[in-house]
Amino acid sequence: MTRTVLESKTKTVVIGFDEPFCVIGERINPTGRKKLAAELEAGNFATVEKDALEQVACGAMVLDVNAGVVYNSNPNPNETEPPLMRRMIELVQGLVDVPLCIDSSVPGALEAGLEKAEGRPLLNSVTGEEERLELVLPLVKKYNVPVVAISNDDTGISMDPDVRFAVARKIVQRAADYGIPAHDIVVDPLVMPIGALASAGEQVFTLVRRLRDELGVNTTCGASNISFGMPHRHGINAAFLPMAICAGMTSAIMNPVRQVEMEAIRAANLLMNHDPNGGEWIRFGRVLDAVEAGKGYAEASAEAMAAGAARGGRRGGRARTA
Amino acid sequence: MTRTVLESKTKTVVIGFDEPFCVIGERINPTGRKKLAAELEAGNFATVEKDALEQVACGAMVLDVNAGVVYNSNPNPNETEPPLMRRMIELVQGLVDVPLCIDSSVPGALEAGLEKAEGRPLLNSVTGEEERLELVLPLVKKYNVPVVAISNDDTGISMDPDVRFAVARKIVQRAADYGIPAHDIVVDPLVMPIGALASAGEQVFTLVRRLRDELGVNTTCGASNISFGMPHRHGINAAFLPMAICAGMTSAIMNPVRQVEMEAIRAANLLMNHDPNGGEWIRFGRVLDAVEAGKGYAEASAEAMAAGAARGGRRGGRARTA
Repeated sequence: MTRTVLESKTKTVVIGFDEPFCVIGERINPTGRKKLAAELEAGNFATVEKDALEQVACGAMVLDVNAGVVYNSNPNPNETEPPLMRRMIELVQGLVDVPLCIDSSVPGALEAGLEKAEGRPLLNSVTGEEERLELVLPLVKKYNVPVVAISNDDTGISMDPDVRFAVARKIVQRAADYGIPAHDIVVDPLVMPIGALASAGEQVFTLVRRLRDELGVNTTCGASNISFGMPHRHGINAAFLPMAICAGMTSAIMNPVRQVEMEAIRAANLLMNHDPNGGEWIRFGRVLDAVEAGKGYAEASAEAMAAGAARGGRRGGRARTA
Repeated sequence: MTRTVLESKTKTVVIGFDEPFCVIGERINPTGRKKLAAELEAGNFATVEKDALEQVACGAMVLDVNAGVVYNSNPNPNETEPPLMRRMIELVQGLVDVPLCIDSSVPGALEAGLEKAEGRPLLNSVTGEEERLELVLPLVKKYNVPVVAISNDDTGISMDPDVRFAVARKIVQRAADYGIPAHDIVVDPLVMPIGALASAGEQVFTLVRRLRDELGVNTTCGASNISFGMPHRHGINAAFLPMAICAGMTSAIMNPVRQVEMEAIRAANLLMNHDPNGGEWIRFGRVLDAVEAGKGYAEASAEAMAAGAARGGRRGGRARTA
């Protein structure tokens, strides 16, 4: 059974075929968030702090940290991203104790993140592009961390799922040349928008099954891509996630501060028999009760987490005291 | 590709691997509905009428009709069910033009329904019990209709999915002896409550794939069984349905007057590439818009249906006038 082990200072999270779906919180990322980008350039980390706490309260098991901002004062990310990555990681792991996912296209920022992160972070990402393979795989080997492998290569993103599968296989094989085992590769088969490509869902479900059966790897995706451009996106996302989980997907990079998506994932965990005795579903039901009573989802989640901590931890606290 | 063809007086509905998920409305059934049972005994069919119209407006493609009431005035269902079945079918097909699913444990009521129903109804049901096989399969053959096959036998309902698969295979083989093809058998693999059996979801997903790959049959289930006894049942149902669809389930007997379940099914149709150009999702989005604006789901669905009829039919009305 494939198990990808991530660690923070004290916590271990396993992405695996027999594990609850791993939610990787995507919010700490200035891409497309102008306000956050401006705050970061000004040295204001209030949004990062809020996003870290809120995502973990809402159920993120891992936090993605992306420092991909282009400063007005210095347009060279090779100079600005590495120190910003260090600072953001320091801040986030001072606030929450979950493994991190170090997300950058800038090589220096990846290495800065690897140096700074405690435990065993996930590196995000390598692709099938030659330059990227030669740059990222040595870091993966040197720091002994798992890596997200995105199935595009120097020819771009193929619309043909067989080509995307072949790219994933190439990355796994190339990693093996470096002594990196398949269980440390988490493949992103690339989710296309269903509005642009009617077979986008089928492609992902088929690819996930093949990646699991033929390469033995864990999988992830940018889940909300599926609904890009469509009305009522959350309804599409909330069906897509259980379907992907049923097909064998084991993690997603997504916004956990969304009730319908998180409800769908928690129900899917229960239905996959990855929630012993339904304990997590029943605990989550209390959050839903609070939302039905008029509370916001993030607030209700934070209160449930605080109540759990007061009882001695979110999972099995009472059992441990018996 | 397996296609189970159902017909009303003028409409054809196909249950199939390449078709939108077939929603069979379960509401017209006095079992566990004391008020409805009393109304039927008193000759009051107002609830049946409401249930017929509302379910079709909300997206039911087939209506189950069950006359399983035990009258206070006559406790023998063999005497009371057949005439009640006749009357209910007459009433329902006078109101709505969708294929019917004739649902009874009383042999005389099944035959009464078959005599009365226009088109090609679905018979519900045969099991692997010897007496039931010998009783129902001749009716299936005589009237040339498809049948729901429930995978329990004289030993009861097995908790072992391999046994349930074997029962389904036995029914398919026995039907073949009567000259009934596999594409006219819609197997119900039996959905257990997840709260009682932690592997209930996995069992169904595995069974559905096997029934499809090895027996080539369509499948159905009583979908809401999965969440029986659990809190926040709709959240569980709304994840279960897309997962079952992803595994290959092609129909369910369920309550279509439930927004979250129907939203999940319509999103799953889109994601399975069974909703060309997303037309149905976009039309359904208008119902969701109306609900968000404060309207009830059934009312919003009925208004959307009426608006569609005014434009010349729910599907492709405008294209046909071009």
